[in-house]
Amino acid sequence: MKNPVSFIGNIPLFKSLPNGQLERLANIATTRTLKKGEAVFSEGEEADGFYVMVRGRVKIYKLSPEGKEQVLHIIGFSEPFGEVPVFSGGRFPANAQAIEEVLLMFFPRSAFVELIRSDPSLALNMLALLSKRLMQFTGLIEGLSLKDVPSRLASYLLDLSSRAGESNALELDISKSLLADVLGTIPETVSRVFARMTGEGIVAVEGRRIVLVDQKRLREISSGVVSLQLK
Amino acid sequence: MKNPVSFIGNIPLFKSLPNGQLERLANIATTRTLKKGEAVFSEGEEADGFYVMVRGRVKIYKLSPEGKEQVLHIIGFSEPFGEVPVFSGGRFPANAQAIEEVLLMFFPRSAFVELIRSDPSLALNMLALLSKRLMQFTGLIEGLSLKDVPSRLASYLLDLSSRAGESNALELDISKSLLADVLGTIPETVSRVFARMTGEGIVAVEGRRIVLVDQKRLREISSGVVSLQLK
Repeated sequence: MKNPVSFIGNIPLFKSLPNGQLERLANIATTRTLKKGEAVFSEGEEADGFYVMVRGRVKIYKLSPEGKEQVLHIIGFSEPFGEVPVFSGGRFPANAQAIEEVLLMFFPRSAFVELIRSDPSLALNMLALLSKRLMQFTGLIEGLSLKDVPSRLASYLLDLSSRAGESNALELDISKSLLADVLGTIPETVSRVFARMTGEGIVAVEGRRIVLVDQKRLREISSGVVSLQLK
Repeated sequence: MKNPVSFIGNIPLFKSLPNGQLERLANIATTRTLKKGEAVFSEGEEADGFYVMVRGRVKIYKLSPEGKEQVLHIIGFSEPFGEVPVFSGGRFPANAQAIEEVLLMFFPRSAFVELIRSDPSLALNMLALLSKRLMQFTGLIEGLSLKDVPSRLASYLLDLSSRAGESNALELDISKSLLADVLGTIPETVSRVFARMTGEGIVAVEGRRIVLVDQKRLREISSGVVSLQLK
């Protein structure tokens, strides 16, 4: 590889780190070439380091008890993989196999941990990058969910009410984080929709207890006749 | 606060850290009470630590040159704020003010850096959490963008072509990351849509050069008559 420092500086995980830290990362990184069909790692193996794709593609997959392959993800150029189990010090939760000839960059866990110990600002910079990206993603998800989440939440609440014998006073049966999953969004957006519904006097919320104050508007939002503006 | 360790363990930034690390975080954390209208921090101030909301709400805002206030975000229960400039060692990019009486938990930067130096696995665990969340968010954004991104990308390409005198061979005028912003999604999804369009023989892509192979289908996708399946 001609210029590993510049390559590392373009990996999303390391983007815009200062040059000194990029050089230290380049010093601990090694490269690995695999032929089509070769395994990068297997499920259950100790996660001794993470990889970044330089050239080619790798498939991440699991095997069902019957041996059926389920592809979770195809890894392409400059994407990291295996970093979650490496960071958390666990085992690889899936298999990785080259689906064409690949060139990988490998960051060994022990050297990476040593780097953070000697220079905590590397970890802080990475945390800053990831936090910033998460914030952007949160905004994007809220934007994309704007139309659908209020309507889906209204349907969910009406369904809960009908199962409770048309009662207006409900106890939410799942956590807010699980509710966000059910509605296909994130907890932040669920909170925002609840806040808006409360502000408009449609529901009253206290912890997991919810009172459906205005069932008529809730039905309108659920059916899409009326839309709830979030901003 | 009755049980700071359990509160810290429920903050998204620290969720599911081992108990020992939660206790060490509790040891460096202090609390701060503010009255309605009091400033938490001001734009340009050195970011000497970050905050997590325990009770109440804080608004994050900027002031225009004319002194007009622009609210960026309202911070609620268990949300961290100020962590990006603290992690990257910079200054606060906006103002934070209590909009009601608030109780905050404060993590001083210097003690936090010291904690990471003595126990790098704290930083690694946080990196694992954030990486995992980013991966979930990426999947969610792809799901939410499914309908719209192919159509918007098709429109963008057709518009580019018409501005180039109806040429079929185009040079993409912006980076893929900026293009993702324009289309209201993330670079990963743009890559996936391009890959699919290439696979179906609608376009041919080589770096920033794009050939519109099948303008007819591109117009159908753009108008929504035909939808492009991503999976």
